[in-house]
Amino acid sequence: MSGLFITFEGGEGAGKTTVILELARLLEAEGHNIVVTREPGGIPIAEKIREIILDKSHTEMDARTEALLYAAARRQHLVETVIPAVNEGKIVLCDRFIDSSLAYQGVARGLGMDEVYQINKFAIDEYMPDLTLLLDITPEKGIARINGNKEREINRLDVEELSFHHKVYEAYHNLLEKFPDRIKKIDASFDILTVEKEAYDTINEFIKRR
Amino acid sequence: MSGLFITFEGGEGAGKTTVILELARLLEAEGHNIVVTREPGGIPIAEKIREIILDKSHTEMDARTEALLYAAARRQHLVETVIPAVNEGKIVLCDRFIDSSLAYQGVARGLGMDEVYQINKFAIDEYMPDLTLLLDITPEKGIARINGNKEREINRLDVEELSFHHKVYEAYHNLLEKFPDRIKKIDASFDILTVEKEAYDTINEFIKRR
Repeated sequence: MSGLFITFEGGEGAGKTTVILELARLLEAEGHNIVVTREPGGIPIAEKIREIILDKSHTEMDARTEALLYAAARRQHLVETVIPAVNEGKIVLCDRFIDSSLAYQGVARGLGMDEVYQINKFAIDEYMPDLTLLLDITPEKGIARINGNKEREINRLDVEELSFHHKVYEAYHNLLEKFPDRIKKIDASFDILTVEKEAYDTINEFIKRR
Repeated sequence: MSGLFITFEGGEGAGKTTVILELARLLEAEGHNIVVTREPGGIPIAEKIREIILDKSHTEMDARTEALLYAAARRQHLVETVIPAVNEGKIVLCDRFIDSSLAYQGVARGLGMDEVYQINKFAIDEYMPDLTLLLDITPEKGIARINGNKEREINRLDVEELSFHHKVYEAYHNLLEKFPDRIKKIDASFDILTVEKEAYDTINEFIKRR
């Protein structure tokens, strides 16, 4: 039986990492074979691409070059890690995928969602996630969570930075409207146990419906 | 005054390098400012991308990953070398550009011309060459030229390899039909002086028509 490819999306402080690890634990306890991953996922070619992207000396890096490099790393991680695992019947829980590029590079960085979609469409070659959980939280609440719930910290944030995260937030909601069958919204502003419960129920419901 | 962006295309043994250097000499003698370049062109980011592509240990490299990496290197070389030079009024003579990706990766490697065009369209962001010279030569003649005009050498060629170069050849002719205004065919089967003369005349005619 073919496995499942489930991706997790959301802004800063949405709690993706914590939720994914707990879901992996719960699903494994039920006998599912789970792979937890995120790009570049230790794939040597993707890691080397990532090094170029993150090298701070590359101040001349063009935004489109960067978007193409992300798409290249995505492709390699997909064919080396995700697809083989799904073909072996495993459930792959992947921290960020195509929607992150659409929201961050397409909208927040201003390259255009449709344009960034084109190169990612080439990268994934129609291999879309079966299910995407959007851990939905406003930038203010998400950043406050990162800062240890000290709401006051937000005031110190650069206005430009907050505006950037608002663009990401709105882009995710736009994607939610575009792909209502694939993307399911999880209210991530609740306490972590409530968020985990909702995410777990959503995945289980999806598995049952198959 | 804005300069010119001229690209050179053609299969193996078409004589691109020789022709470009001679054209640079002739055009410089007439007072033009010339930049001779080819991807990755010494641009550090593009060179590092190229290293990943050419690393022989990367046997797991997916064809789409490779195409995205070529597009990323193209983007960076374009914004760092080509566009600034053209904006300074120089004539840029570039050995291979988007048409090579369309012919080699799109057609000969089987990724699809339209699909490879999409990612390259993103990479170049509508910055197409003003003029493209296709040095047209059949794979048999081109390869014979590389092998020192010993026609017999062709017999030792892998049939698969020759078939690959025929696909490239046909793809270039397809592009010629698609972009008759931009791409000009130069018969590269003649002796090198004749080829250089035709290329030179074609460029001068283009400059005069502007």
